[in-house]
Amino acid sequence: MTAAYLDVLAVGNAIVDVLAPVEDEALTHHGLVKGSMRLCDEREAEAVYRSMGPGVEMSGGSAANTAVGVASFGGRSGFVGKVRDDQLGSVFAHDIRAAGVAFDSPPATSGPPTGRCLVLITPDAQRTMSTFLGTAGLLGPDDVPVDRVAWAGVTYLEGYLWEEPSAKAAIQLAIEAAHGAGRKVAFTLSDSFCVDRNRAEFVRLVESSVDILFANEAEITSLYEDSDFEACVRRLQRAVSIGAVTRSEKGSVLIAGDTIEEIPAEPVDVVDTTGAGDLYAAGVLFGLASGYDLAVAGRLGSAAAAEVISHVGARPEVSLAELVAPVLDG
Amino acid sequence: MTAAYLDVLAVGNAIVDVLAPVEDEALTHHGLVKGSMRLCDEREAEAVYRSMGPGVEMSGGSAANTAVGVASFGGRSGFVGKVRDDQLGSVFAHDIRAAGVAFDSPPATSGPPTGRCLVLITPDAQRTMSTFLGTAGLLGPDDVPVDRVAWAGVTYLEGYLWEEPSAKAAIQLAIEAAHGAGRKVAFTLSDSFCVDRNRAEFVRLVESSVDILFANEAEITSLYEDSDFEACVRRLQRAVSIGAVTRSEKGSVLIAGDTIEEIPAEPVDVVDTTGAGDLYAAGVLFGLASGYDLAVAGRLGSAAAAEVISHVGARPEVSLAELVAPVLDG
Repeated sequence: MTAAYLDVLAVGNAIVDVLAPVEDEALTHHGLVKGSMRLCDEREAEAVYRSMGPGVEMSGGSAANTAVGVASFGGRSGFVGKVRDDQLGSVFAHDIRAAGVAFDSPPATSGPPTGRCLVLITPDAQRTMSTFLGTAGLLGPDDVPVDRVAWAGVTYLEGYLWEEPSAKAAIQLAIEAAHGAGRKVAFTLSDSFCVDRNRAEFVRLVESSVDILFANEAEITSLYEDSDFEACVRRLQRAVSIGAVTRSEKGSVLIAGDTIEEIPAEPVDVVDTTGAGDLYAAGVLFGLASGYDLAVAGRLGSAAAAEVISHVGARPEVSLAELVAPVLDG
Repeated sequence: MTAAYLDVLAVGNAIVDVLAPVEDEALTHHGLVKGSMRLCDEREAEAVYRSMGPGVEMSGGSAANTAVGVASFGGRSGFVGKVRDDQLGSVFAHDIRAAGVAFDSPPATSGPPTGRCLVLITPDAQRTMSTFLGTAGLLGPDDVPVDRVAWAGVTYLEGYLWEEPSAKAAIQLAIEAAHGAGRKVAFTLSDSFCVDRNRAEFVRLVESSVDILFANEAEITSLYEDSDFEACVRRLQRAVSIGAVTRSEKGSVLIAGDTIEEIPAEPVDVVDTTGAGDLYAAGVLFGLASGYDLAVAGRLGSAAAAEVISHVGARPEVSLAELVAPVLDG
């Protein structure tokens, strides 16, 4: 097999985040559930935006954040996702390239605008998301660079993509291309509501096609409809080669066959939990791509997650390679 | 005279700031002078943007920041400036309205895009600005709502507008409308490079048409081409009804006829000086509009400036009304 040109190729929704304060009443008014992510159309996004305070825009997207994390560790990463040829599309493309991620998806010249995620910050510092996918939601098989997938050690897919039929077909094509080239497929369950909507298909997908699965405790217990975490871990153990399940302040559990590693969370003053799972995945994927064992990969994940939750925004503000140098040297 | 519908109507460039890290070499490469603001065309803006790291977008514009500050103090403020009907234009309009500022300028439906200011942050935390005015630079007399100017206690104009002939004509119309209605005109010199390019016209404008002048030490000494600060203050004393000159950590000096008030700067850990002058002006204008004396107005200016330099971004993150309540009650 030839060497992988990319350590990780991430496929996901290309999204710009708009973060702004709201009062609790705004959530009620728009029927949003605190702490959750909901998809909406452009009209609803505009109505929600009108009830938000002055905002800040920064590039986001779950798998895109992971690709940025891998690059920040010094890994070679790429991203596949759809933007339009508008200002937010330019912002998304600029930011991900400036972070060192290969991003070649050409912007669409017609159709809906670049996707955005309205992040509503209530006075209790909780975040509720209302996502207008826009052009991101039109990702289809034609957008999957099968050559590139074949040259990536791991193709990482986000569960959020499963919400749109064309993206679902894109995922399946990417899986075929990766496995056809003898590469690995990683998948994240993304969100417990997303799991809830797609449970049966996700269970099948994980068992048939996923080599490395990322989930948090709520997602894995929702996937298997079993509140017994240990039972879910045992089931996951049989389903995938590597499972990585995060448990917030309780750390994470990595599973590979008979090996189970429990990794503690790093102590940190939490400012904004957005991106914690995305960056945890970045650390684990970079660690595995670099040949570290499960425990080290898990610690890289914890370190990256701790960095990203220590500030506002879902992408690292410092070089993760420099941040973890003491861990890797020690 | 009827009561003013607005305490302050600010007229300026409608700009979205794009903040991102760069290496020092990028400044050299693009011929930018550290700490300065330079206008550029769209092509140059794109070239500069390409050399910047991943960024964050937030609404800015000097006079617009001041209007937001006045609203945050609980004052009634409005803003006049030109955006296009594009995504950054929507962001600008949303943010200023969400901050409580009346903003009725209709977006242009053709022409250049909404203006943006690339804020290049070097490793020494200094900020260098490259501004593509875009549609903001097309502000002209037709965009000045003369009725609204006549109903505003103070019309506040930014010196940056003087760079474009049509905006210069807009300023002159606004001055006529304000003075014709018996209202006051406030002006900020904006930037010492801006003063340098327009010195003779600025001196004439200040002496003939400005009631309240805002400047910092570099700008006022550049205006009068005299490095003796006290001499500049004496000259300003004769030129305007009220002068307010900021001196960074040395505080500020307010002048009204024979009254000279020296206001100390508030102690603060400086994170980002962007917006310091804009928010100082907001405090002083709100203070004067509310009938406070010069010294209190100056202290409100210092408090607002201290707030805005304690975090990244040029607009307040807390309610200035709440912040200064102890000052005003005490």
